[in-house]
Amino acid sequence: MEFSSKLLENAVYEMSQLPGIGKRTALRLVLHLLRQHPDQTNKLSLALKQMRTEIKHCTSCHNISDVELCELCANASRNERLICVVEDIRDVMAIESTSQFKGLYHVLGGKISPIDGIGPSELNIDSLVAKVLNGKVDELIFALSSTMEGDTTNFYIFRKIESANITVSTIARGISVGDELEYTDEVTLGRSILHRIPFVQSLKG
Amino acid sequence: MEFSSKLLENAVYEMSQLPGIGKRTALRLVLHLLRQHPDQTNKLSLALKQMRTEIKHCTSCHNISDVELCELCANASRNERLICVVEDIRDVMAIESTSQFKGLYHVLGGKISPIDGIGPSELNIDSLVAKVLNGKVDELIFALSSTMEGDTTNFYIFRKIESANITVSTIARGISVGDELEYTDEVTLGRSILHRIPFVQSLKG
Repeated sequence: MEFSSKLLENAVYEMSQLPGIGKRTALRLVLHLLRQHPDQTNKLSLALKQMRTEIKHCTSCHNISDVELCELCANASRNERLICVVEDIRDVMAIESTSQFKGLYHVLGGKISPIDGIGPSELNIDSLVAKVLNGKVDELIFALSSTMEGDTTNFYIFRKIESANITVSTIARGISVGDELEYTDEVTLGRSILHRIPFVQSLKG
Repeated sequence: MEFSSKLLENAVYEMSQLPGIGKRTALRLVLHLLRQHPDQTNKLSLALKQMRTEIKHCTSCHNISDVELCELCANASRNERLICVVEDIRDVMAIESTSQFKGLYHVLGGKISPIDGIGPSELNIDSLVAKVLNGKVDELIFALSSTMEGDTTNFYIFRKIESANITVSTIARGISVGDELEYTDEVTLGRSILHRIPFVQSLKG
């Protein structure tokens, strides 16, 4: 692509560094901004800059926050002895939108994945283990994605806190609500039979 | 979507104002920036701001440019009496990448489209007409997209410059190079028969 303007070329280049945005899409986005009022670009530019320089991570749960202790951790009505372990902030948002969880979160910041060079030391595991070993937690719920990396991470943390003798659970795996049996993969279906739940209990959901 | 941070929410909101980028994609992009070095966000933020505030349009052809007269118009080796009329800067880049055109461009900035509220006065038509009527042009090539709006725009400009008696052409419409006949739509195929070209001439391409 040949550009008639260095400024344009630079903007397109920086835009195309974002994941899933190629040069053509970047050009389309930048030309769109050029057609709009300059305010829109200025607001976007400022929002990105502020977000990146001023945003903090909660000192307790490592969730993204504007203050030292995030809204969730600062909320006295939530059960601080029930901790849900998640990969990143999107999982917090997903679980929060269900309104089914009244405890706190612990954001790991990823999964153990040797292939991507991510070991336990790259994740927020030590602070979680410290919380548990200091007797501040009654139950830990693993809510990581159901992949080999997720399972590895669960197991690694479990071994570290085994001695504390607290309740450790993982979120239920089974067929999705509304799913047809015939379209469910065998592994999921097999597990959902293995981990069947009492019918009376299932009526509560 | 519930955000734990106003800064994050704001950045996601501004990002989702771009065409084709929804809230979820915006969140993914912003979280990606958060994981990268702050430099990347700062560079993107600065590039967008500079692009929007400092970029100019060439005073002659209305192409995007960093200076008053764009590189193409300032290039003495190009034929300034042969003008290719295009919709926007992407078309200039597309035609330039073919290396088949040695004249100059005139960027209209859109097509006449009453449904979108775009009339002739919103486009850079007057300056093109003035160029032609002042005897500065030998040939005009219409290279607008082959839609009703494109054809309307071509015809509107043609009526305005008819009196100048210069050569006016449009880019050839026909089947794409490499296309199978059976998959070509009838209108295109019909036109390509109607506007057939001498075989000897077709060998030159």
